[in-house]
Amino acid sequence: MDVTYLSDILKKVSENSMDVDTALESLKHLPYEDIGYANIDQHRNLRTGEAEVIFGQGKTPEQIAGIVSHMMHDNARILVTRASEASYEAVKEVAPEAVYEKLSKIIMVGAMPEPEVEKGTIAVVTAGTSDIPVAEEAALTAEFFGDKVDRVYDVGVAGIHRLFGKIDRIQSADVIIVIAGMEGALASVVGGLVEVPVIAVPTSVGYGASFGGLAALLSMLNSCANGIGVVNIDNGYGAACLANKIMKR
Amino acid sequence: MDVTYLSDILKKVSENSMDVDTALESLKHLPYEDIGYANIDQHRNLRTGEAEVIFGQGKTPEQIAGIVSHMMHDNARILVTRASEASYEAVKEVAPEAVYEKLSKIIMVGAMPEPEVEKGTIAVVTAGTSDIPVAEEAALTAEFFGDKVDRVYDVGVAGIHRLFGKIDRIQSADVIIVIAGMEGALASVVGGLVEVPVIAVPTSVGYGASFGGLAALLSMLNSCANGIGVVNIDNGYGAACLANKIMKR
Amino acid sequence: MDVTYLSDILKKVSENSMDVDTALESLKHLPYEDIGYANIDQHRNLRTGEAEVIFGQGKTPEQIAGIVSHMMHDNARILVTRASEASYEAVKEVAPEAVYEKLSKIIMVGAMPEPEVEKGTIAVVTAGTSDIPVAEEAALTAEFFGDKVDRVYDVGVAGIHRLFGKIDRIQSADVIIVIAGMEGALASVVGGLVEVPVIAVPTSVGYGASFGGLAALLSMLNSCANGIGVVNIDNGYGAACLANKIMKR
Amino acid sequence: MDVTYLSDILKKVSENSMDVDTALESLKHLPYEDIGYANIDQHRNLRTGEAEVIFGQGKTPEQIAGIVSHMMHDNARILVTRASEASYEAVKEVAPEAVYEKLSKIIMVGAMPEPEVEKGTIAVVTAGTSDIPVAEEAALTAEFFGDKVDRVYDVGVAGIHRLFGKIDRIQSADVIIVIAGMEGALASVVGGLVEVPVIAVPTSVGYGASFGGLAALLSMLNSCANGIGVVNIDNGYGAACLANKIMKR
Amino acid sequence: MDVTYLSDILKKVSENSMDVDTALESLKHLPYEDIGYANIDQHRNLRTGEAEVIFGQGKTPEQIAGIVSHMMHDNARILVTRASEASYEAVKEVAPEAVYEKLSKIIMVGAMPEPEVEKGTIAVVTAGTSDIPVAEEAALTAEFFGDKVDRVYDVGVAGIHRLFGKIDRIQSADVIIVIAGMEGALASVVGGLVEVPVIAVPTSVGYGASFGGLAALLSMLNSCANGIGVVNIDNGYGAACLANKIMKR
Amino acid sequence: MDVTYLSDILKKVSENSMDVDTALESLKHLPYEDIGYANIDQHRNLRTGEAEVIFGQGKTPEQIAGIVSHMMHDNARILVTRASEASYEAVKEVAPEAVYEKLSKIIMVGAMPEPEVEKGTIAVVTAGTSDIPVAEEAALTAEFFGDKVDRVYDVGVAGIHRLFGKIDRIQSADVIIVIAGMEGALASVVGGLVEVPVIAVPTSVGYGASFGGLAALLSMLNSCANGIGVVNIDNGYGAACLANKIMKR
Amino acid sequence: MDVTYLSDILKKVSENSMDVDTALESLKHLPYEDIGYANIDQHRNLRTGEAEVIFGQGKTPEQIAGIVSHMMHDNARILVTRASEASYEAVKEVAPEAVYEKLSKIIMVGAMPEPEVEKGTIAVVTAGTSDIPVAEEAALTAEFFGDKVDRVYDVGVAGIHRLFGKIDRIQSADVIIVIAGMEGALASVVGGLVEVPVIAVPTSVGYGASFGGLAALLSMLNSCANGIGVVNIDNGYGAACLANKIMKR
Amino acid sequence: MDVTYLSDILKKVSENSMDVDTALESLKHLPYEDIGYANIDQHRNLRTGEAEVIFGQGKTPEQIAGIVSHMMHDNARILVTRASEASYEAVKEVAPEAVYEKLSKIIMVGAMPEPEVEKGTIAVVTAGTSDIPVAEEAALTAEFFGDKVDRVYDVGVAGIHRLFGKIDRIQSADVIIVIAGMEGALASVVGGLVEVPVIAVPTSVGYGASFGGLAALLSMLNSCANGIGVVNIDNGYGAACLANKIMKR
Repeated sequence: MDVTYLSDILKKVSENSMDVDTALESLKHLPYEDIGYANIDQHRNLRTGEAEVIFGQGKTPEQIAGIVSHMMHDNARILVTRASEASYEAVKEVAPEAVYEKLSKIIMVGAMPEPEVEKGTIAVVTAGTSDIPVAEEAALTAEFFGDKVDRVYDVGVAGIHRLFGKIDRIQSADVIIVIAGMEGALASVVGGLVEVPVIAVPTSVGYGASFGGLAALLSMLNSCANGIGVVNIDNGYGAACLANKIMKR
Repeated sequence: MDVTYLSDILKKVSENSMDVDTALESLKHLPYEDIGYANIDQHRNLRTGEAEVIFGQGKTPEQIAGIVSHMMHDNARILVTRASEASYEAVKEVAPEAVYEKLSKIIMVGAMPEPEVEKGTIAVVTAGTSDIPVAEEAALTAEFFGDKVDRVYDVGVAGIHRLFGKIDRIQSADVIIVIAGMEGALASVVGGLVEVPVIAVPTSVGYGASFGGLAALLSMLNSCANGIGVVNIDNGYGAACLANKIMKR
Repeated sequence: MDVTYLSDILKKVSENSMDVDTALESLKHLPYEDIGYANIDQHRNLRTGEAEVIFGQGKTPEQIAGIVSHMMHDNARILVTRASEASYEAVKEVAPEAVYEKLSKIIMVGAMPEPEVEKGTIAVVTAGTSDIPVAEEAALTAEFFGDKVDRVYDVGVAGIHRLFGKIDRIQSADVIIVIAGMEGALASVVGGLVEVPVIAVPTSVGYGASFGGLAALLSMLNSCANGIGVVNIDNGYGAACLANKIMKR
Repeated sequence: MDVTYLSDILKKVSENSMDVDTALESLKHLPYEDIGYANIDQHRNLRTGEAEVIFGQGKTPEQIAGIVSHMMHDNARILVTRASEASYEAVKEVAPEAVYEKLSKIIMVGAMPEPEVEKGTIAVVTAGTSDIPVAEEAALTAEFFGDKVDRVYDVGVAGIHRLFGKIDRIQSADVIIVIAGMEGALASVVGGLVEVPVIAVPTSVGYGASFGGLAALLSMLNSCANGIGVVNIDNGYGAACLANKIMKR
Repeated sequence: MDVTYLSDILKKVSENSMDVDTALESLKHLPYEDIGYANIDQHRNLRTGEAEVIFGQGKTPEQIAGIVSHMMHDNARILVTRASEASYEAVKEVAPEAVYEKLSKIIMVGAMPEPEVEKGTIAVVTAGTSDIPVAEEAALTAEFFGDKVDRVYDVGVAGIHRLFGKIDRIQSADVIIVIAGMEGALASVVGGLVEVPVIAVPTSVGYGASFGGLAALLSMLNSCANGIGVVNIDNGYGAACLANKIMKR
Repeated sequence: MDVTYLSDILKKVSENSMDVDTALESLKHLPYEDIGYANIDQHRNLRTGEAEVIFGQGKTPEQIAGIVSHMMHDNARILVTRASEASYEAVKEVAPEAVYEKLSKIIMVGAMPEPEVEKGTIAVVTAGTSDIPVAEEAALTAEFFGDKVDRVYDVGVAGIHRLFGKIDRIQSADVIIVIAGMEGALASVVGGLVEVPVIAVPTSVGYGASFGGLAALLSMLNSCANGIGVVNIDNGYGAACLANKIMKR
Repeated sequence: MDVTYLSDILKKVSENSMDVDTALESLKHLPYEDIGYANIDQHRNLRTGEAEVIFGQGKTPEQIAGIVSHMMHDNARILVTRASEASYEAVKEVAPEAVYEKLSKIIMVGAMPEPEVEKGTIAVVTAGTSDIPVAEEAALTAEFFGDKVDRVYDVGVAGIHRLFGKIDRIQSADVIIVIAGMEGALASVVGGLVEVPVIAVPTSVGYGASFGGLAALLSMLNSCANGIGVVNIDNGYGAACLANKIMKR
Repeated sequence: MDVTYLSDILKKVSENSMDVDTALESLKHLPYEDIGYANIDQHRNLRTGEAEVIFGQGKTPEQIAGIVSHMMHDNARILVTRASEASYEAVKEVAPEAVYEKLSKIIMVGAMPEPEVEKGTIAVVTAGTSDIPVAEEAALTAEFFGDKVDRVYDVGVAGIHRLFGKIDRIQSADVIIVIAGMEGALASVVGGLVEVPVIAVPTSVGYGASFGGLAALLSMLNSCANGIGVVNIDNGYGAACLANKIMKR
């Protein structure tokens, strides 16, 4: 709830520039737009250039395109995660300049911003090649939010010299996103080697008793290394959000 | 077991208008129709206009059409839930006036009744856009049973001002059905804001560790708000049944 | 959130009887009392005689007694659920008239009200003798809230004639709370025999593959009977809350 | 292990009609035929007309047809469970008289025997229409083994009068197979109404928190009725095997 | 539901020796005795000497003694399972002749009957020494019901020669109860060696990933041997009930 | 792995002030002390005043006291988490100035440092009174690391006005640790109201289907709010570690 | 980490044939090749003829072909597991001599080596026909590593004479890989009959409560036979790796 | 099954020194001793000095002492695992020289043998101090079987330099037993650093979402390193058995 917004209303009421019923109504109609199947926040894109995000999974191409269409005021840059190619086709109808990153299933409307290099770097580290789609969801999201990203892929612990070969890049990052399926041990090993916050993303990569990422999830939650925050299985986007919030400090 | 029916038989035996063996037989052959793969209740549609419901999942289109065909006495209105388009095609053969609601996978035979407004309103509230198919199953079912429904969609707790913007509609309802996937927190928040019964429907919307709706289900069962009854994952129909029974009081 | 309360504040601001900063402060300090380890709602017990409830589990005897002590204004009647004998001893220090129901682990401060008979009856039905502690938690809570309760115990489906012997008491209730452990089948059978709302409470009674009530919980959620709302395992209190809200209609 | 067979070998050794090495070899080469991907018991079909069963799931059509081909000595009657249409096509190549029961996915080679009526009747009872495929697997298997079967379908507990309408057929059976998905409560109710052995088959029919039949499985294992043996989810074949063994007494 | 009883009432009504209201009342008051916390079946112990069973778990010593006290008409023999020593002390107050089997936690009131040898033998087979308490619950229950029992203990598959050393006793039984914890493989091996019904009881014996008997339970449900019915974890009593019903054929 | 340390060794080898075998040995014997049952890092407490942490769970009082004893060089401040009173007694033998925080089960050796206020504030927020022990583990750990902590307790979503009454304290924090059992919804609601990183700690508070904190854990992992990192159930210490690393930026 | 490699670098630094910075760099760039989506170990295929393995699952055909292409130095023999036909098509482009084993989904580049017979034999034993694909993955991998393999298929415990018919082949092996789905009992039985190490592979073969191999997995982990090591569900490749390491002793 | 034994019997029958019935009997009475609650193998301790093992868990002190008493022929050395102090007291009655290792809960009767050094060394490696009881069960068992053991404790991956400091001891072992709770990552890291077989033992050390060792178990089963065999949670004894069988090669 936007405390500033609330304060503004109260001020107007106090100055008699707004009557009580209108104020009460205003509080009930905070600035979002109801388009039937979705309520779109409007107050955030008042500031030009701010990035908006649509979680694409479970929405029809028509719904996604509709939401994009309503968000396209003020040069807003829009990211759609978990988007199918069909959704991309629908979005192109309303936003012809949209691009689609097939591996990470991301649609982007609007240009990628220049990274804010002075804030530092987010390292996105994967255990294997199969974790790359989730890693790209994280990396592209972070870049879309203006963060600088260093991709360090396929450095799982079964061949720990590969990790050590790139340890300086990992150790020089300001926040580290570790993405691993199977047993997820990479999070613990990296967590023991660095001083900065680590965000662990279990992936559904694996078979048999990985149970769709459960093994990696439990492994990461039980890490003997400290300072590791875990997000949902395959949730590269969520990891990037948390990393971005940490980078903003 | 229909106590009135039982009492009637006993009375007839007492008055010697029915012999004992016939009575015993009658008790064994209560009024339903056996069509081989289904036993269809007949006593309920003696009263013209009463709504009948067929649970479509796991039944073949032929079976569904067959049951519809046997139920179509006395202007009965019939609702088929979880119906595929193939089932709709089969039902149209025996009931050409049937309509199909694609989003909620509902077939309706017979006209939607006028809502009994004086009984009050059921609010159907969803956390996100992806929960709408389940919500529509609940809303259409309730309307088919004669209840007035107010749809309040996409008001999940991550943007709690959207919820507060519509809180007066929610608070003025007589029963509230809250439909949410992911972490299902909306049920607890709504449950803490209202005085009326809340029916919570976890949905299978989500990914990773939502485990097909398990996360939302457990969340709703453990709600710190009181007065919340939970139904099965994605069971919009069941929620509408319970809401309808409460509305009848 | 108390919309009336909010409206009052706005009115005062508008009439200049309250300045903006005070109003904003008021909104931040809604009427509850912060005693360090708990925030106690005060606005509810403005009305004399209203029942307050403390969930005792996980709180120390000192904390429970402390909360009771702060709530004891205005002749408030107070119910403490999941209370140990040690908690009862502590409560008696601040409320000597408190009574303790050992079976259901409930402490009651203040007299049990006269049941509001005209609202109807809640039937509390158990499958077995071992389910009675949970049933008593539900029954006493409902009675504390002013509801009339009919206890129907030990009528599980393995001897279905016991259920039928009491079916008229069950069928004449306005809301039915079904409490069952093991396989929880009683909820489905009762749900198929009545027209009123059924609230199902799985209990942790059972052994082996009951997995602490999981078997009964899943069974009740998957009931083939409609109109059943499920609450958490052993949550007699929660069932009574929902029943009370339905009875108020 | 065939004790008679073992005894025979020992006798021959004793009578010097078999030397020790041959005897040891014989013990190692009990009468089955190794066809590379399967070891086919041969001693059982020495008796003409005995039924053989192939569990079709996980085998390729070629493997199934190959096993059928090797088993077809001595007029053996062969049943293939969990068989796809492709498997049926392959079997027809080697056994043109084979028939395919689509609903239960059973291939039968050889004629169905006359039921041994004097042994009594197996009642196969289902809760719903959707449980019929599993029920047919059980019923056809039992009939293939020579048992008399009485099918009682769609008598789930949500409409318990339907069950009571057919209770005399159920109560007159010698063994009862109860097949139910969702919450599986039918097993408990039937178990409480009869004196004969009950075999419970949970089915994967249901949705949401049925978790592929887990809810019904746990429910049946925790039944408050006694004398119920449970088999695997959807395992109609296994239930028929157990019923057949009981009928043989 | 006792069809004979029902038929009797109808006959009386027909002969005008009972009026309708009385009949209806009779149906509602079938022959059990309501002692508040339990409804005790009375019609079964009309026949002198019949065995009654009380499931002791979850009942207080006072409740158990109370139920025993009400059941002690007509020389009834009574078995209490899952009974604590405290329960035994309470039962002795009302039935001084009661005996307590510590290992199996069984109280017996009344003499053990002569086994009905002509019906055959139930073999109770355990994998290990630690499974004996469950085995004794099964064996004593079966003997209390009048069955002849052969105990074959500690013949688990890790030393399969121990099993083969006793295979003739197992193969000569009419019903076999297999009791095993850990991986429960004994059920499959025995199931493959006999032609008679096998009842499998998983036990909670084991550690680590046995998860309280879950490993053995799943193992037994998935047995590759046919004709195996499974009961709940540690449910020796239930296995004996099912075995007894099969023996009665 | 300490890259500086490695670089130092290499330099010495290059300058011939260390021979190769010694260097190889040095790499194998990095600066920790092996006391048989534990390897204690020594290089970290070279800097006077740095805090050391011992995870007390699963260690005997003797082991804990032994580790404390070896760590007590250079005025090191030592924190022991999950410590029993017996462990405290043992530690007092070697470190008489140690203090014990009973609620959070923390032993502290050495003085609590002055909070580094300029870095900002960590808000530790709980849903209920029962979550306070975990919260205190987090708060004391963070304070021991030099962070300023603001405790906001008992503001769960069932009474959301309590949360809003303290929302300004929460919104003015730099990192927020949300601690909640039951359904864990507080994490999502707080996550939707703030712009800073949120660390969610599920607690084992709850009953029935909370399954020892699983419900809250899944709920938090599936949060519809972004930027939430989850740690293990009841892991207040781990949350403080992550918060501290974020605060250091 | 290659200690020899490390020692070499240190030696060079000591002899001043390498400066410190270069050494540090070398440690960071151990001998693997970074091709963007994968880091390929190079040091292992320095020795001609050594086998390399690519885990194909989760990698695109293009990625697999790319890795094969980079590995094809020095006559390396390459095995790709879990490979689709599409992957085979892609690999053939860069390695036309590659062959594809459809049943086990294995691509092999380079000739199968002569088995090192003097090391002994690995027996690969399956319970059923449906376990053969996993068995072939194990057998082909072991053969590719130079081990001699004896395949013993379809000897599950339900017909234990089939197992005994081949017991001498099993008992004469040096390591035994037991592959079984359903209840996985074969591992315990074989484990009790042999003195050599047993590697158990649960398979996802089964239905209902096998839960994708979980039943067999738990069964094998809880085996009452000693000396059994378990690998992941369906992990024939991993079993072969462990067997090969044991054979090398 | 002892093929030699079988062969001997057959030979005697052939030479007419044993008649058929005696032979059949002999096969049924293989050389073990039935003491009612246990069947004790006798043939194994014919060779003086061979070690016998009793799994103590779930057995009463009396049963354990009884089994020890029957095994004490021929100077047999006996190991009892999972033994309580009460069991030790009982064993001392029959074997006064018995010693008790409290940490690992092992009773040993008879002297520890000289290690067979020429076979090589088993390294027993733990992640933490809390894993030591399981490690000691493994180490003492292996030593009791005559293996040389090297204990490497508290080298978990969170401080990977501790592992590297002891890597040469680990790399020089012939078989490695890795014992770890929490996330169990140590197995993967060690597995990637050595060429010899690794046996992984998950422990129940941990809290929250470790779920009694499930997290470590799944982690180890899903290890990205190859050649790892997993045993049951906390099963140090089983790991030692497997290691011993590998050492015998």
